Amino acid sequence: MSSLHLEQALIGGRIVADVAVTVEAGTIASVAIGGLPAPDAVRVAGLTLPGLPNLHSHAFQRGMAGLSETRGASDDSFWTWREVMYRFLDKLSPDDVAAIAAQAYAEMLETGFTGVCEFHYLHHDVDGGRYADIAAMASAIAQAAHETGIGLTLLPVFYRFGGFGQLAPSHGQRRFINDPDSFARLVEGSRKAVSSVAGAVVGIAPHSLRAVGAADLEQVRRLAGGAPIHIHIAEQEKEVADCLAWSGQRPVEWLFDHADVDRQWCLIHATHLTLAERDAIAASGAVAGLCPVTEASLGDGIFDGVAFHEGGGVLGVGTDSNIQVGAASELRQLEYSQRLRDRRRARLAPVGGSVGLSLYQATLDGGARASGRAVGAIAPGCGADLVTLDLDHPALVARSGAALLDSAIFAATEMPVREVRVAGQRVVEAGRHVHGDVIRQRFSSVMRRVLG
Amino acid sequence: MSSLHLEQALIGGRIVADVAVTVEAGTIASVAIGGLPAPDAVRVAGLTLPGLPNLHSHAFQRGMAGLSETRGASDDSFWTWREVMYRFLDKLSPDDVAAIAAQAYAEMLETGFTGVCEFHYLHHDVDGGRYADIAAMASAIAQAAHETGIGLTLLPVFYRFGGFGQLAPSHGQRRFINDPDSFARLVEGSRKAVSSVAGAVVGIAPHSLRAVGAADLEQVRRLAGGAPIHIHIAEQEKEVADCLAWSGQRPVEWLFDHADVDRQWCLIHATHLTLAERDAIAASGAVAGLCPVTEASLGDGIFDGVAFHEGGGVLGVGTDSNIQVGAASELRQLEYSQRLRDRRRARLAPVGGSVGLSLYQATLDGGARASGRAVGAIAPGCGADLVTLDLDHPALVARSGAALLDSAIFAATEMPVREVRVAGQRVVEAGRHVHGDVIRQRFSSVMRRVLG
Repeated sequence: MSSLHLEQALIGGRIVADVAVTVEAGTIASVAIGGLPAPDAVRVAGLTLPGLPNLHSHAFQRGMAGLSETRGASDDSFWTWREVMYRFLDKLSPDDVAAIAAQAYAEMLETGFTGVCEFHYLHHDVDGGRYADIAAMASAIAQAAHETGIGLTLLPVFYRFGGFGQLAPSHGQRRFINDPDSFARLVEGSRKAVSSVAGAVVGIAPHSLRAVGAADLEQVRRLAGGAPIHIHIAEQEKEVADCLAWSGQRPVEWLFDHADVDRQWCLIHATHLTLAERDAIAASGAVAGLCPVTEASLGDGIFDGVAFHEGGGVLGVGTDSNIQVGAASELRQLEYSQRLRDRRRARLAPVGGSVGLSLYQATLDGGARASGRAVGAIAPGCGADLVTLDLDHPALVARSGAALLDSAIFAATEMPVREVRVAGQRVVEAGRHVHGDVIRQRFSSVMRRVLG
Repeated sequence: MSSLHLEQALIGGRIVADVAVTVEAGTIASVAIGGLPAPDAVRVAGLTLPGLPNLHSHAFQRGMAGLSETRGASDDSFWTWREVMYRFLDKLSPDDVAAIAAQAYAEMLETGFTGVCEFHYLHHDVDGGRYADIAAMASAIAQAAHETGIGLTLLPVFYRFGGFGQLAPSHGQRRFINDPDSFARLVEGSRKAVSSVAGAVVGIAPHSLRAVGAADLEQVRRLAGGAPIHIHIAEQEKEVADCLAWSGQRPVEWLFDHADVDRQWCLIHATHLTLAERDAIAASGAVAGLCPVTEASLGDGIFDGVAFHEGGGVLGVGTDSNIQVGAASELRQLEYSQRLRDRRRARLAPVGGSVGLSLYQATLDGGARASGRAVGAIAPGCGADLVTLDLDHPALVARSGAALLDSAIFAATEMPVREVRVAGQRVVEAGRHVHGDVIRQRFSSVMRRVLG
């Protein structure tokens, strides 16, 4: 058992001082507010937050960040970006993916995320054939999580078809494809692969309605057991149009008709919704998994976060393409897109509430639910996933209370993180991941070979 | 005379290797591409860019970043934010402003800006009375520019009325107000104040159509001589409505009817435009001075950058409220707001062009024009204002050519700046301002007193 004494901490939606926390086997055993530091306690100066769960990542895409920003002859869109992505991943081995994922995860830890939901669809060898160990790529992800110490929810992705109506997969998709039998083996292999990662959870991700059939959804659900189920949905207007053409229904409408969507689900993007679809998601308890920076980068559109949140909907944020990595960047882009649309300030907060605190608390709750792990609060039974901010940073100096979160999110380029613990282990010190140099050098070697 | 040998550099819209630059009295004397390093040349590893001019800053507002993010009982807007700002500046002395401005300018230099247009309206003592030296606050700005080494275009602001129709100023505005005579003395004092700042320019800024009368514009123009004239315009829908109610014309329409707007002018924000207004600005050669992060923070709305730029309009970026400071953050927010509106990618680039390179080059040209200084290019006769990026940064590793700019802007949280020179003098080393510690400590003391 270890003891921490937190100078300030976010607990129960408020910032409080002098918090004694005991940690046993990575989990918070007790929390007491307001006392003096115990003699054996490690004193943690600054403001300590429950680390934010990143609810959507394709880690390997960190390696192609910025490589699809040339304007093509026809108008660029998500779909032209996807072609660039398919060409990039053509070359990657499991070791490459482990190296790139470790870099991405180290950056996440340095910028406020203590957990990641890895939506993992790059399964097979470069020719589309299965690796001897069908879960070799899942092992690469597990290895990166183990090395960096980030909390892991691994979501092996079921990807069967190339488009609505059970289209054959394209050449670019060959490394993603499984039939129901091979996918069951992949899930089994993924469970073994994460056994080295303390506290890891394996959920399931049907990729999208484009990529799976109606019958597949039921099988996927059985494989998940009680673990999280994530799906890409309604990201793009073309996707909505294609779904309507195929089924006569919009994607979210179709999903709710064909699956028992509940709080076990996380609907990634869910950008283009009717009022009825929005209300259905809110009522179901499913998490709306927003990826504000990627959705801006890909020109997806603006999710109506204000109406969804005020209607009781649960939302969280993910870094998705990892074109940029940072909790504040995601929260800011989410809030700013609402402001630009509504031409008003202070959108995702209740009256009288701090936007920073409200956004942080909401995405903590949503991220924790989507991760399927006991995280997201400084409370007994939760993982000791703790992010400590530097109160001497110019953007935070002389602030107190909720204004600390407002300034950390809106006034610093990224949250001024000083140290980070995951399951009680310190993985970031003085703002840098403890293995950051090794991870970065290996990443750089891989990138020089892959892009060279 | 000094000699630099740049490993890579942005010259004439392209990235080229092995650039020999000689600098005389802060100005680039010669540029030669492709040769071997001269024996006496300082070798500059990395990619060197002409530093970006920041065309709009209210430096003191850096001290209130994040302090107006609480949702009020009525819907928050620019106008409620303005009340918070008025209360904050109530307390500031010239020394406080010098300390806050130095912090803001050091951050600008560390994140890619080598010059700033300071739109300076906080002139008078806390009771609204003039300081013994009417330009005491201008001297504080000049002092901060001198200490940090940033290139300065000081724009003393003429602020006379509290609203359209020559309304009396409010209490919150008392420190901004001048009559035409006192303003002429203030401009004279400002010219003296900047005499310690090498290469500084003093322009003129009529604050907005709310704050000046028609006759004032003509006087302002005479005071400017050939120097830049900046004005806030059409930032807010309410401002457009108020202008219509007052004059029957929209702000930009009114301005073009009452002033000879040409390339000497910079129209700050210009968010809400008719097609005719947009075309008038483009045809005039005036710079559209966009402040994407602040405009998102304040919920102003989305400038139609695509149509303006493709119609030949000149644009640049500024950090305005300084709620965040960083060139990449501004450029990214500008491009991303266009993508979210248009639901397409790659907006502010020609077909076949890199968005990063196109955006950077466009805002270099616009920023240089708005600054009234010979900057914005690595070319003979231009100031040696040079920003060098670290090519070993994980977001840049193994990139080349225009992809370096795409990745620096879109894939790093802020541009990975390694060193910065202004007028040939090195002011940032290893990513940190050379006087950063002193500047930050002084800023922190001021903030603890002002906010304490």
